[in-house]
Amino acid sequence: MLKLLLTTSLLLAMIPIPPSDALAQHRREAVDLLVLGGSIVTMDQTRRIIDDGGIAISKGRIVAIGPRAEIERAYTSRQRVSAEGKVITPGLINGHTHIPMVLFRGLADDLDLQEWLTKYIFPAEAKNVTEQFVRVGARLGLAEMIRGGTTTYCDMYYFEDAIADETAKAGVRGVLGETIIDFPVADNKTNAEGMAYVEKFVARWKGNDLIIPAIAPHAPYTVSEEHLKAVRAFSDRTGVPIVTHIAETKREVDDMVKAKGASPVAYLERIGFLNNRVIAAHMVWPQGNDIAILQRRGVGVIHNPQSNMKLAAGVAPVPRMLKEGVLLGLGTDGAASNNDLNMWEEMDTVAKLHKVFTGDPKVISAQQAFEFATIRGAQALHLEKEIGSLEVGKRADLLIVDRDTLNQIPVYNIYSDLVYATKAADVETVIINGRVVMRDRRLLTLNETVVKKEARAFRDKIIKSVGGSSAP
Amino acid sequence: MLKLLLTTSLLLAMIPIPPSDALAQHRREAVDLLVLGGSIVTMDQTRRIIDDGGIAISKGRIVAIGPRAEIERAYTSRQRVSAEGKVITPGLINGHTHIPMVLFRGLADDLDLQEWLTKYIFPAEAKNVTEQFVRVGARLGLAEMIRGGTTTYCDMYYFEDAIADETAKAGVRGVLGETIIDFPVADNKTNAEGMAYVEKFVARWKGNDLIIPAIAPHAPYTVSEEHLKAVRAFSDRTGVPIVTHIAETKREVDDMVKAKGASPVAYLERIGFLNNRVIAAHMVWPQGNDIAILQRRGVGVIHNPQSNMKLAAGVAPVPRMLKEGVLLGLGTDGAASNNDLNMWEEMDTVAKLHKVFTGDPKVISAQQAFEFATIRGAQALHLEKEIGSLEVGKRADLLIVDRDTLNQIPVYNIYSDLVYATKAADVETVIINGRVVMRDRRLLTLNETVVKKEARAFRDKIIKSVGGSSAP
Repeated sequence: MLKLLLTTSLLLAMIPIPPSDALAQHRREAVDLLVLGGSIVTMDQTRRIIDDGGIAISKGRIVAIGPRAEIERAYTSRQRVSAEGKVITPGLINGHTHIPMVLFRGLADDLDLQEWLTKYIFPAEAKNVTEQFVRVGARLGLAEMIRGGTTTYCDMYYFEDAIADETAKAGVRGVLGETIIDFPVADNKTNAEGMAYVEKFVARWKGNDLIIPAIAPHAPYTVSEEHLKAVRAFSDRTGVPIVTHIAETKREVDDMVKAKGASPVAYLERIGFLNNRVIAAHMVWPQGNDIAILQRRGVGVIHNPQSNMKLAAGVAPVPRMLKEGVLLGLGTDGAASNNDLNMWEEMDTVAKLHKVFTGDPKVISAQQAFEFATIRGAQALHLEKEIGSLEVGKRADLLIVDRDTLNQIPVYNIYSDLVYATKAADVETVIINGRVVMRDRRLLTLNETVVKKEARAFRDKIIKSVGGSSAP
Repeated sequence: MLKLLLTTSLLLAMIPIPPSDALAQHRREAVDLLVLGGSIVTMDQTRRIIDDGGIAISKGRIVAIGPRAEIERAYTSRQRVSAEGKVITPGLINGHTHIPMVLFRGLADDLDLQEWLTKYIFPAEAKNVTEQFVRVGARLGLAEMIRGGTTTYCDMYYFEDAIADETAKAGVRGVLGETIIDFPVADNKTNAEGMAYVEKFVARWKGNDLIIPAIAPHAPYTVSEEHLKAVRAFSDRTGVPIVTHIAETKREVDDMVKAKGASPVAYLERIGFLNNRVIAAHMVWPQGNDIAILQRRGVGVIHNPQSNMKLAAGVAPVPRMLKEGVLLGLGTDGAASNNDLNMWEEMDTVAKLHKVFTGDPKVISAQQAFEFATIRGAQALHLEKEIGSLEVGKRADLLIVDRDTLNQIPVYNIYSDLVYATKAADVETVIINGRVVMRDRRLLTLNETVVKKEARAFRDKIIKSVGGSSAP
């Protein structure tokens, strides 16, 4: 808190207030924070870009947005951030993660998905995942995400209550799903335990400004029909989102067709599981009528291009889903299968991958790629009324991005620059819910040195847990 | 020069010399530069990794490499660079660029290759490319490359003599090919002019420590058979490499089959063009027996995954070419079709793209991806005796890479870390031919502020040259 106050004073010291301001001040509305200068990429309905813009923020929300001069005439604030010469964008939305898995980053690569899961990831999880592991991993992942401009992420893991606690402390927005799975896991040994955990978890966080608690049945092939129906009933009763994996691999689809006589989507539709609170990661292999079902039910789909590439899961039919009106967002997946939490690289990849895969260089534009990480991502998380664009009434989740790095010169088109040329390291300042969580590349809510040290301390134990050495 | 001397003094000041050193010094060999500490990824034949290593450098070459203690016992130097806790790797080799095209970065995206070339790139080049344009673009590209750890690049453009001049001044190694093409271009209006230019260009730079002058016939479809034969004869006489584009698009192959009754590779083989001085970019569409021809002739092939994806050119059969023994390197292509000169992203992409395209997650490993950007890249440029690995006798081209960034924690496998998690911004120090060209992220051979300012000055004129506004 002291740190934040100091920060505010520093900002004040840096931007001299002209004498006339003192006189005019009584006529202006006082707000918590003003962001002034720079080009604002609003991602609103008209995709308005405001040059030399200004944003007034109060109580975590955008009060006004427009040309800088107008904002300065109408609002005053003790806290100001200058974005002169820079770009202001909505915070990025990472639609699918398993955040503590940053601690398994690079533990095992270049393997078949089954081998990777059964020989490395599951054993490593069985032997390492504790509440402390999850907290340390979450802090490392949160620090990486803030540095890269992610302001909202959608997670599925264990001890999600501890992840929520760390996320709220770091000042980051999260749709956080506690895993429900039909085998014993680190935090819950039975389905009954899991459902009891979720009940408490949701009760604790519901209504929080930053945390949207969710229930996360792992996948239709790891959770029984009965348990999936209970998950849906729980979501109906509490209103929380359902985070899950659907149709990641061809094998999953084939197995489901054998077992249930239907594709995963068709099966979930048949048992009445799908609705507009479901957030489905991957969707690499929708079959037959599946895309129409997803569209009709308002299911949010999260595409994870780099993870799907690295595990050779396949290429999701993103252009078709887009055309048929499916709500589509973008995610990194866990860092064990990516190997980072970098949304800039996902944006770059989503555009390039579908161009080459369809043979059509126009199939996904830079602007559409940026939409996936902002307003469309918000739609896929069913949060489009709160986040995803910079508009009056929405949460003040935004980035100030440096445009002076060598890789960004010159700029002809703002979306091209953001998607094909901007790097995570170019993000300078991050504001979430009106709070500055990174300023001029300095993290304000996490102690980076401690975060790194604590994360490294897990390394040797993790290596031993998978048999003494890491994968080749 | 003053700057470099100051740098040296600073380095001396930073590393205290123990008192016993003064006595031992007469027994040690004095060298120009010692790099001490850190893990050295040698990329030598055995792919040795030396923990807490040391490298002694004199006259631009590696004199000794081994455990730090051994190096310190045998060598002394007034200039030392500490790499404690960091990774030392061979400098990266960007096998295909058109460096001044950084000035067209983002000018036109998400277009068909033909439309992109004929409506934007060719008109923009016709109206903007002058020697001054090329110098300013080269400086911007060189600065970006140094920052990202590229120490050697292979280029094809106009006014290549000016590019060579800028490259040598920046202290970067370049295989620089002056374009030969059968239509009038900025620097030469006829083939005779072009060949005369190349003659002078090669005479000027041959034998330079950093610059390998080359002749660059644009492509088999833009240069006549007669002119291609003259290029080959020129290369036979002077020994310089031949840089060209082959089989980038399916259309190019189909057109060649119609016109010449053979694929581009088969046609070039028939006219006696191919040998072990040829460096062929792209090779997305080799046909029939082409791969065997490339292998037999010792042609170097440069794969440009991100450019091929963005322009929807296709996916080159890299795993097959690798298996059949083709010399394979990696490149970014020009920044107008990428949109950067970032070899870390190419490495990440080459591994992931071929996994998903073949359905086999083992098809290209992290280590192989790193090889493409180092030792295999050197082979593809026919420079494996000089660069590509850290070994005694080779040129001292190397990087010191930070391992303390959030995206790299923890590290289980060094190649996985380098390929899937390291970013260009993590490169701290770059040494080329024994000269420190970037230290602790500060460029020493280029004035970054001036480079940026001069590059930006071209923007408005370029926009006007393509009809007043950039592409949508």
